[in-house]
Amino acid sequence: MDFHRLLADRTERMEASAIREILKVASQPEVVSLAGGLPAAESFPLDLLPGLLDAVVRKYGAASLQYDASEGFMPLREALLPHLAARGVTTTVDQVLITSGSQGALDGIGKTFLSPGDIVAVEAPTYLGALQAFTPYQPRYAQVEADDDGLVPASLDAVLSAGGVKLIYAVPTFQNPTGRTLSIERRHRVAEILRRHDALLVEDDPYSDLRYVGERVPPIHSLAPDHVIYLTTLSKTFSPGLRLGVCVASPEAFRWLVIARQGVDLHTGTLGQALASEYLAGGYLDERLPGIVEFYRPRREAMLTTLERTMPEGVRWTQPEGGMFIWVTGPAGLDADRLYEATLARGVAFVPGRHFYADAPPHDGGGLPADATSTFRMNFTAAEPAVIERAVEVIAEAMHEALRAQASS
Amino acid sequence: MDFHRLLADRTERMEASAIREILKVASQPEVVSLAGGLPAAESFPLDLLPGLLDAVVRKYGAASLQYDASEGFMPLREALLPHLAARGVTTTVDQVLITSGSQGALDGIGKTFLSPGDIVAVEAPTYLGALQAFTPYQPRYAQVEADDDGLVPASLDAVLSAGGVKLIYAVPTFQNPTGRTLSIERRHRVAEILRRHDALLVEDDPYSDLRYVGERVPPIHSLAPDHVIYLTTLSKTFSPGLRLGVCVASPEAFRWLVIARQGVDLHTGTLGQALASEYLAGGYLDERLPGIVEFYRPRREAMLTTLERTMPEGVRWTQPEGGMFIWVTGPAGLDADRLYEATLARGVAFVPGRHFYADAPPHDGGGLPADATSTFRMNFTAAEPAVIERAVEVIAEAMHEALRAQASS
Repeated sequence: MDFHRLLADRTERMEASAIREILKVASQPEVVSLAGGLPAAESFPLDLLPGLLDAVVRKYGAASLQYDASEGFMPLREALLPHLAARGVTTTVDQVLITSGSQGALDGIGKTFLSPGDIVAVEAPTYLGALQAFTPYQPRYAQVEADDDGLVPASLDAVLSAGGVKLIYAVPTFQNPTGRTLSIERRHRVAEILRRHDALLVEDDPYSDLRYVGERVPPIHSLAPDHVIYLTTLSKTFSPGLRLGVCVASPEAFRWLVIARQGVDLHTGTLGQALASEYLAGGYLDERLPGIVEFYRPRREAMLTTLERTMPEGVRWTQPEGGMFIWVTGPAGLDADRLYEATLARGVAFVPGRHFYADAPPHDGGGLPADATSTFRMNFTAAEPAVIERAVEVIAEAMHEALRAQASS
Repeated sequence: MDFHRLLADRTERMEASAIREILKVASQPEVVSLAGGLPAAESFPLDLLPGLLDAVVRKYGAASLQYDASEGFMPLREALLPHLAARGVTTTVDQVLITSGSQGALDGIGKTFLSPGDIVAVEAPTYLGALQAFTPYQPRYAQVEADDDGLVPASLDAVLSAGGVKLIYAVPTFQNPTGRTLSIERRHRVAEILRRHDALLVEDDPYSDLRYVGERVPPIHSLAPDHVIYLTTLSKTFSPGLRLGVCVASPEAFRWLVIARQGVDLHTGTLGQALASEYLAGGYLDERLPGIVEFYRPRREAMLTTLERTMPEGVRWTQPEGGMFIWVTGPAGLDADRLYEATLARGVAFVPGRHFYADAPPHDGGGLPADATSTFRMNFTAAEPAVIERAVEVIAEAMHEALRAQASS
C-alpha cells in the first residue's frame, strides 16, 4: 500500500538528513572517522558488569526485570542526588526524572511544550539531536549568536524581546558541535535574562565531567533553578548503550514531563537503571572518571597540536577545555562540503558544519551565518592519538590544495 | 515560573488519567490488586541473567554498552525471525524494528502517521496504552463494535466507509482489556476489508504466547502483510523491565518509523537487546514458555470458577483462552465506579471498564456504549489462585449488596 499518503503533516520535516548519510559512510571500517560522537569503548566498565549484575540481583531480585515507575528507578534517582550536588545541581529526589537517554528528555520537552509555530531559541550552531527531537513538534527556530565564550547574552536578550519564544535550548559546557564553554560572567547574565523574561532554558550538560584543563564552572541551573530544566546523562561516563538520561525539573514541569514520557515508553529500562544505581552508589564512577579523563586527554592534545602544526593560514579552531569536539572555521571561501568529499576520497571523515545550524533543512530557523559553510566538526574521543594525527594531516593537506585551487582560479 | 502558560496545545489532553490514580492506590501493599497488568515476577528468568550476561560480554564485548543502530541490535533482529515465523509472521530482518517496549512502537506510529483531527479506529473497549500513545498527536477516535468473537467486521467496514481513518488499532488475540480473541473467520474478513479500503491496521499482539486452552490462530499480518504493522513484545515472556518491543513493518513504513524513533530515543537500550538475543538464540524462551503457561493456568481457572460460583444473576464475563484479563459486564444499572469504591474499602481493586473506551476523557471518541459503565477488568496473572479466589468473592459480595440496594430502592 501507499504509505506516503498516510504520513502526518510533521513527518516530511523528519526527512532523513544528510548527516545520517555521512555517519553511515563514516562508520565503514575502511574510513577513519572524526565524524561521529562516540565515547571510546575502552572507557566502558565492561569488567564491572558481572559484579554490578550480581549486586542488582541480590538487592532487587525480580524487580530489576519488572515494570517500574515512569519517574525512574528510585535507587538510581537517590544515587544521583550526591552526584548532581557535586556538579552544582542541588535538587530533591522528586525532581529527578530518568529518561531513555537525554534524547528521551528532549523529546518529552518538545512534546510537553511545543505547539506548531512556537519558537525555540538555539545557539548557532547547536546540537543536532535536539533539533531532531524538537522538529517533529513543528516549532520555528531563532538562532542566538555565539562566540568563543559561548552564546552571546545580548543576542539572547534580543531574541527573547522579539517574543514568541517557548524555550531556549543550550549546551553551555563543551558544546556539541563547537566545544565552547559559556563563561561564568555570561552564565550570571543569562540567569538574569531568564529571570527578567520569565523564560525557560533547557540546559543540556552531557560533557562537563570530561574536563581536561581548567576549573569546573557552575551550571546555569545553580543560578536560576526555577527557570532551568537541567539535563545530563550517564552516556559519556558509564554507557551510552544503556540509554540513561537524567532530567531535573521543577515540580510542575516534572509532572507534565512524566505524563508525556508515559505515552512514549511507559518508563526507562529497569535493569539498566539498576546497574547504573549500583555503579554510582558503589562509588565506581568517582573511581573511574579520572581514568576516563586521562584516556581522552592525549587524544585532545593530538588534535590540537596537529591542527597547530598543519593548518593553512586563516583557519581558526576552538580550544575546548573538555568534551569531545573541536570546531574548525576555514578561511572565507572554503567549502566544507567539497573538503569533505576530498578527504573522504582519502579515507577520512568529519561533519561539515552547516548541518548543525537550525536553518538547515528539514528544520526552520533564521539565516545561515556567512562563515557557516566553511566550518566543520571533528571528534577526538573515538580514535587513538596517532590516528587522529594522521587524519588531521589528511584534512589539512586537502585544505591546502583547496585553497591553492581557489587562489589560482 | 508559571509552566502552565508554556504548555503545548496537545498537553492538556494528556492530563493525568483516573486510571493512573487507580493503579497507584492498587499498588499499596495492603490492597489485593486485580487492577494492574503485571506479569508474575516468578515468570522472569532471573536465574539465567548471569549466564546470559556472560555470553553477551564474551560475544559482543564493549559493543553491548555502546550506541547502536536505531533499527535495533542486529543479533536480536536475526534471532526474532524464527520466533516470529513460528507465530505466523513471515518477514525479513530489514523489516524488524526494535522499540522501547510496544509503547515505543505505538508512539512512533502516532508520530509518523497522525495529524491533528485524523481518525484512529479502535475497538470498543481498547487498550489504554495505545490511547495514551496516540492522543498527544491529537487524533479523533472512531469506535468499532466488538462482541465475544472480537471486533465486528461489518462495524469496521462502516467506520472505514465513513472516511478519514488514518489507521486502525486492534489487539486481536486475548485483547486487553476484554481477553477476547478475533475468530479465524473474522480475521479473513478483516484482511479482505483492509485490502478493499487500502487501509492500515496496527495489529498489537503482546499476549498470544500465553495460551492456556485452544489452538493458536494466525495473525492478521499473515493474511494481509502489506496492510498490517505487526507489534509484539518480550515483556510477557522474558522481562517487561527491559522495555523491548518488536515492530514488523513494510519497507516504506519501516523507514519513517526509524526516523521518528531516532528523534525520540536514538535507539533501544543495547544491553537489554543483547540479553534478549541470547535468551532467544539460546532456546531459553522455547524452554521456559510452557512453564510460564502452566504457572498462569491455575490463576485463570481460579478466576473463572470463582466467578461461576459467586456472581449474581445477570452478570456476564469473557472466557479468554489466554492472556491476562477477564472482562465482566454487570446487569443493567450496576455502577462499576461505585462497586470499585465498595471493594476498595475491603482491600480489593480492579479497573472500572469505562476507562478503556476511547471517548473517556482526555481522549475524543464517539459515544460510550450503554452497558460500558457496568463493566470492569480483572487481571489474573499477578496474584496466586487462592488470593484471586478471595478477591473475586469480595467483588461478588459487593455486587450482591449493590444489586440488593438497587432492587430495594
